[in-house]
Amino acid sequence: MEQVQIVEVGARDGLQNEAEVIATPDKAQLIDRLLRAGVRRIEVASFVNPARVPQMADGEAVIAGLPDRPDVSYIGLCLNKRGVLRAIASREGGARGVDEAGCVVVASDSFGQRNQGQTVAQGIAENVAMLRLAREAGLVPQVTISAAFGCPFEGSVPPERVIDIARAMADAGAVEIALADTIGVAVPAQVEELFGRLAEAAPGVAMRAHFHNTRGTGIANAWAAYRSGVRVLDASLGGLGGCPFAPRATGNISTEDLVFMLDRSGVASGVDLDALIAINGWFAEVLGRPLPSMVAKAGGWSGRAATP
Amino acid sequence: MEQVQIVEVGARDGLQNEAEVIATPDKAQLIDRLLRAGVRRIEVASFVNPARVPQMADGEAVIAGLPDRPDVSYIGLCLNKRGVLRAIASREGGARGVDEAGCVVVASDSFGQRNQGQTVAQGIAENVAMLRLAREAGLVPQVTISAAFGCPFEGSVPPERVIDIARAMADAGAVEIALADTIGVAVPAQVEELFGRLAEAAPGVAMRAHFHNTRGTGIANAWAAYRSGVRVLDASLGGLGGCPFAPRATGNISTEDLVFMLDRSGVASGVDLDALIAINGWFAEVLGRPLPSMVAKAGGWSGRAATP
Repeated sequence: MEQVQIVEVGARDGLQNEAEVIATPDKAQLIDRLLRAGVRRIEVASFVNPARVPQMADGEAVIAGLPDRPDVSYIGLCLNKRGVLRAIASREGGARGVDEAGCVVVASDSFGQRNQGQTVAQGIAENVAMLRLAREAGLVPQVTISAAFGCPFEGSVPPERVIDIARAMADAGAVEIALADTIGVAVPAQVEELFGRLAEAAPGVAMRAHFHNTRGTGIANAWAAYRSGVRVLDASLGGLGGCPFAPRATGNISTEDLVFMLDRSGVASGVDLDALIAINGWFAEVLGRPLPSMVAKAGGWSGRAATP
Repeated sequence: MEQVQIVEVGARDGLQNEAEVIATPDKAQLIDRLLRAGVRRIEVASFVNPARVPQMADGEAVIAGLPDRPDVSYIGLCLNKRGVLRAIASREGGARGVDEAGCVVVASDSFGQRNQGQTVAQGIAENVAMLRLAREAGLVPQVTISAAFGCPFEGSVPPERVIDIARAMADAGAVEIALADTIGVAVPAQVEELFGRLAEAAPGVAMRAHFHNTRGTGIANAWAAYRSGVRVLDASLGGLGGCPFAPRATGNISTEDLVFMLDRSGVASGVDLDALIAINGWFAEVLGRPLPSMVAKAGGWSGRAATP
């Protein structure tokens, strides 16, 4: 059976656009429930400036409460060297901490400057240093190229630029490169093309895909990525998400919808759909509103039992 | 440039699940606006029992008001011979009427009995007669196999059964066969497999695909169908839709979302995205609520101009 690894990003990318700050114990419970549903790789915090993203200000507290499971890989998002240093610090004194430094380099100057105060060139230089720092400290050095399919300010992003960035990241020791459609404008044909090029440009590096469903194409893009050889897909519970610095960006692809598609396609993810739907119901109560996931609304469908 | 023909089903499949009956002039205006947006093939009515589907009771009145355009093909949905006779009658006395008899055969006994009072075997026999009747009267004889990807009552539908039905329909003179995911459970791998088999089983017959986005996979399925050689896709403005006799079935794939995907993939549909978004805004006012389309909410994205 084919397999896909899901990286659950609901507790980080999913929450960071929420106006109201979610309490640390609720975040801890969200992570714990997701692990019990079968998630084995999960974004738990973003080491950003708490003044800019108050939702992520309790990152260290969330990490301190994580279950010490050897079968789970925790990801801390790092936008600069300072972020990597916080990721490293999370492991000091024998603490569990995070396992991976999820570095981020942006594929457009305008978005990069707004999101993390860096041009593309500055972002590449910073990430080269961040990946080295992470590796030396024993963290898994991986990187996401954001706005890889389009920029909210500049429009189209040349594929050549994305591939050049990817080459630089591979040379700097990234063990995995994600291409992220931060603003939800990617379409399957573009996904196939860009991952095809990435596979050629960085053959030894694992590929990951990160899609938002802003214009309804997120699940289609996930399948196109799968068909292009990608075996690691980001998704967020219920389709939570957005980006505080990308206008109109809406939710990530929903983990429920992705798992439904994979299950029915004979692709194993190890994540249990019914458990996800139950978590969705609980977390919708925490937030006080329904989440965008379609499957959670419609119900899973085994294809065996009668529905009504 | 590759081309796809969109069959707009908003005025029929889109509306038939609306609790409140839409006034005939609003339906006429909806159709007219869609034609001005570039739609050239459109479902305009369903010849069903008005007592069962009151929303469709004004079919003849809608048809009587259609613009007499030679470049447009109007489809009337026919669930039985009586429906085909009404389609034929719409052209009597030199009236424009409908151009196509959109016949429907159901791929499961339980759903067929609830939807149109027919088992699969009865449906095949009825549709053979319907297609002949339509052809003899000069209507385009085409057929949709509904619940082809799953049944709300029985669960999985064997692909062999769908293909057997398709063969019978091709033998009876259907010029086009649509596979419909009436309840929104299809996934891309299944779409690729079933249309692959259909192409082999009925090589001379055009293939059409009809998807609902009930579980978020509709646009992914549309792309999978396109990649499997399908060049005709059903969609409804705003993702309107549902089926009164299929529990939990929700909207068709949204024409806006489909056109966005096709445009950005370099596939021409002839339908203008900005015009669709404008129609969506108008029709949401008619209905008094927003429509599910994601693109209409997020805005189209040229990939050239800056967004904010």
